[in-house]
Amino acid sequence: MESVICTVDVVLLTLREGNLYVALLLRDKAPFQGAWALPGGYVHVEADEDAEQAAGRVLEEKAGIVSPYLEQLATFSGRARDPRGWSVSISYYALVPSAVIERVERSDLRLVAVDQLKNLPFDHLNIVRAALERVRSKSSYSSLPVYLCSEQFTLPQLQTVYEAILKEPINKVSFRRKMEELGILEPVLGAVETGKANRPAQYYRLKAQYRHTLSQTGRGLNPGS
Amino acid sequence: MESVICTVDVVLLTLREGNLYVALLLRDKAPFQGAWALPGGYVHVEADEDAEQAAGRVLEEKAGIVSPYLEQLATFSGRARDPRGWSVSISYYALVPSAVIERVERSDLRLVAVDQLKNLPFDHLNIVRAALERVRSKSSYSSLPVYLCSEQFTLPQLQTVYEAILKEPINKVSFRRKMEELGILEPVLGAVETGKANRPAQYYRLKAQYRHTLSQTGRGLNPGS
Repeated sequence: MESVICTVDVVLLTLREGNLYVALLLRDKAPFQGAWALPGGYVHVEADEDAEQAAGRVLEEKAGIVSPYLEQLATFSGRARDPRGWSVSISYYALVPSAVIERVERSDLRLVAVDQLKNLPFDHLNIVRAALERVRSKSSYSSLPVYLCSEQFTLPQLQTVYEAILKEPINKVSFRRKMEELGILEPVLGAVETGKANRPAQYYRLKAQYRHTLSQTGRGLNPGS
Repeated sequence: MESVICTVDVVLLTLREGNLYVALLLRDKAPFQGAWALPGGYVHVEADEDAEQAAGRVLEEKAGIVSPYLEQLATFSGRARDPRGWSVSISYYALVPSAVIERVERSDLRLVAVDQLKNLPFDHLNIVRAALERVRSKSSYSSLPVYLCSEQFTLPQLQTVYEAILKEPINKVSFRRKMEELGILEPVLGAVETGKANRPAQYYRLKAQYRHTLSQTGRGLNPGS
């Protein structure tokens, strides 16, 4: 039986100035040498326990990034997507604060705004689109966007992150109730935002037990009114 | 590079007397010869355009079933799940009316209630659990359960299907409003349920354009009150 090429790809998303960006790597090998593409690579059957571990290894080896949270997105497969032959890409996505990517200083890694993406090799554009769809549909009822924040954030800052992903204003009262329901945040003792005209805002962070998992509420957020 | 075993598996779910059942096939080959397992098989790189087509082919060839709706569930992978070596199972699921399975008369195909499942070969029990979780989480805000119904159904019948999956009563008014919002049903002209003490109920069916796709509303169903 002819064998199938088995690879993993990672869509690493971050937020800068209210826009979602994706991390791309310059390919140093054929096919598509010299093109910017998602970090990806072959599964190594000796080294990797499973595909998730392969994705983590590839991200670390090729981009120098360790992500705290990788979720399986979907598997893209078929005869047409890779010039080398019938292939499978088990794709993962992660949301990280932009600092995680920006502190990696290498010229073969760049962040591109997702609405500026044009051509990507293989079916990577489809993979990014699927990731965006997943993130947007999950964001309205889960803790997912919190992973885009730095370690400490105020509730208004967090609301801005949700609004950037959902691309619509959110009602403040509804937002705070939803965060309450999720029960994943804790105030950082003694940490308040100062130097603004408004009342100082309390800083929050993810409770320790939620730093590597996703929490969901039963219902979505209501649009602002 | 050592190659990866690339397979597809299908979780075919149906509803009988208010309980979800999964279709299992008797394995006629090693490994696990003589065990009941999910219909599955190797990707054939010559025959299959992609993994979804492979899943459809396997289901038809091995179980004699053509499903109108296969959705990718997730990919299960790793060194430990298959005694033959490092393997990938790109898994799909489908919901079908029980008649679709019951009209296949073969002794190597059976339906087992999902809450009666004990041991399954490979990680098939995990795959079934993931399918159930997906179906339950999607059902409250999508047309997914309609695929379990026969071609025509009354709204009370359809509500029973949703309740069987969600395992909770649904408020009748909320249910009808949700179906209205989805906009996927059309009344069958001149078809009403008769022979019952109540007012005769109108029969509905999926509109033609939705027979192969899934529709979603923004919000879930409310529990009955």
